[in-house]
Amino acid sequence: MIGIDVGGANLKVVDEESVHIHYCPLWKGAPLADLLTPYQGGAAAVVMSGELADSFSCKMDGICHIVDAIKSVFRAPLFYGTDGRFHTSAVPQLAAANWLASADWLRERYPEAVFLDIGSTTTDIIPLPLYNEMKGMTDLRRLQGGYLIYTGMLRTNLAAHIRSVEIDGIRTPVSTEYFAASADAHLVLGHIRDADYTCPAPDWGGATYQASLRRLARVVCADPDEIGERGAIRIAERFWEVQREIISKAVQQVMGESGADMLLTCGIGSALFARELNGRDLREEMGEASDALPAYAVREVALRSA
Amino acid sequence: MIGIDVGGANLKVVDEESVHIHYCPLWKGAPLADLLTPYQGGAAAVVMSGELADSFSCKMDGICHIVDAIKSVFRAPLFYGTDGRFHTSAVPQLAAANWLASADWLRERYPEAVFLDIGSTTTDIIPLPLYNEMKGMTDLRRLQGGYLIYTGMLRTNLAAHIRSVEIDGIRTPVSTEYFAASADAHLVLGHIRDADYTCPAPDWGGATYQASLRRLARVVCADPDEIGERGAIRIAERFWEVQREIISKAVQQVMGESGADMLLTCGIGSALFARELNGRDLREEMGEASDALPAYAVREVALRSA
Repeated sequence: MIGIDVGGANLKVVDEESVHIHYCPLWKGAPLADLLTPYQGGAAAVVMSGELADSFSCKMDGICHIVDAIKSVFRAPLFYGTDGRFHTSAVPQLAAANWLASADWLRERYPEAVFLDIGSTTTDIIPLPLYNEMKGMTDLRRLQGGYLIYTGMLRTNLAAHIRSVEIDGIRTPVSTEYFAASADAHLVLGHIRDADYTCPAPDWGGATYQASLRRLARVVCADPDEIGERGAIRIAERFWEVQREIISKAVQQVMGESGADMLLTCGIGSALFARELNGRDLREEMGEASDALPAYAVREVALRSA
Repeated sequence: MIGIDVGGANLKVVDEESVHIHYCPLWKGAPLADLLTPYQGGAAAVVMSGELADSFSCKMDGICHIVDAIKSVFRAPLFYGTDGRFHTSAVPQLAAANWLASADWLRERYPEAVFLDIGSTTTDIIPLPLYNEMKGMTDLRRLQGGYLIYTGMLRTNLAAHIRSVEIDGIRTPVSTEYFAASADAHLVLGHIRDADYTCPAPDWGGATYQASLRRLARVVCADPDEIGERGAIRIAERFWEVQREIISKAVQQVMGESGADMLLTCGIGSALFARELNGRDLREEMGEASDALPAYAVREVALRSA
């Protein structure tokens, strides 16, 4: 049995031994079935959130596309839904159930925890004590409840979080173009390594410190020599202040309302946020499976219910 | 003599009789020389701002690329610089001088005005009484001074201006993905027509009312039927409130500091903002040349100084 998580930007596959993450931009028509073919042969349990990709006219269109692609590769795959059940065909409940699969697996081991999954693009904050109440929640409701936040370690446009930044003591409004990504900020701040920069850079350039400085400078329409390394780093720091504040506030709110007594972190921002928010880093016990928790979890839940 | 404005997203060409606007995304390596070849034969006066496109490693790299492309098509072209002079080769002063060419032409006719040029991506707010003080300003300095604002009628990511929107009375944080553009907001609000939607849509879909509603709904991770037409329009309205406020505040500031007594509007947002801010719409006297003012102006300035 393998577990599969079909996101909008990434495809994650977990088997008994290892975790495979493929960049798979569905909005560009990435060949999902082709990427899955090497994993053919056994059973598959699946979650998705990629149905929101804007190459699909609506979520149901996306669900059908993804289900068809999976079924073209695997025999009798099981699709986990926001109702907490497995389905064998395309139904509306399959939209964005990845977070619930993670919760479904974690709730037995950590019934009193909130878990925080910080991915490339989005952040899930799920109160495990409220697992039953969370069932059926759409992404719209999760945005409204503070359980889904569109901020991530790699792909977030800096201009979505910061309006301006102080450069040499002068308030400097930023460009709204997608000139730099959260990966650039986290790279120059040392939160991720070059090898962690697994999405394409906004300018399709390199994943290096110098290239990230160039992209950061462009956020204020400058070359690096106009604002200096210090100026570019200031832009990264400002973004990070805001991103940390957004996530930290949301975590506090969800911890409070659910009466949870511990915070579990996973995803590529796991170690960073475990440090920042005094959480327990699931990566330390799970290893790299923590970077693909929904894929890991849907497999576990399927095995448990088999 | 023709006037040419090489922006990052659009190439604009003005001759005695007409205005030609070509979508020309330099960051994707659009073939600038090929697009210009049909205009070959006479003299050319040129301004640019496309050197900031992130396919170039730095502004000088962009300037050289653009100058080379122009020189491969025209004999002895003249390039207007932020020093208010024409140059015949690639020099740093050529970076983002388009707004100054417009000011240079307008200042003799409207010495006491501020002009507001609202394009697809950016907005220039230029105090003509301060023309001489404005010379030499880089885009970084213009951002800091409030003379350049990264907001436009077509390409602006809604998430760059709004953090949340009320849907059915519930505060709803938005996705930071590039799911909807300012063109979608302005289209559903009736500020632009389908034919004015001249940039690619975020999802590469159609420039229609229904397609824009779908893109707007995606900003809160929803299909249109989850939030209704009313919900999607609310997202557009919220964006427009913020965009209008940003531009209106900046115009007030520049009017105040320069002692100007009138506001001129041009660019594709010309009529809308002339109404909103009680300005004089240059389109009414110039016709479509107002949509390509820097290209028109650099030609006039070159003819004047010839």
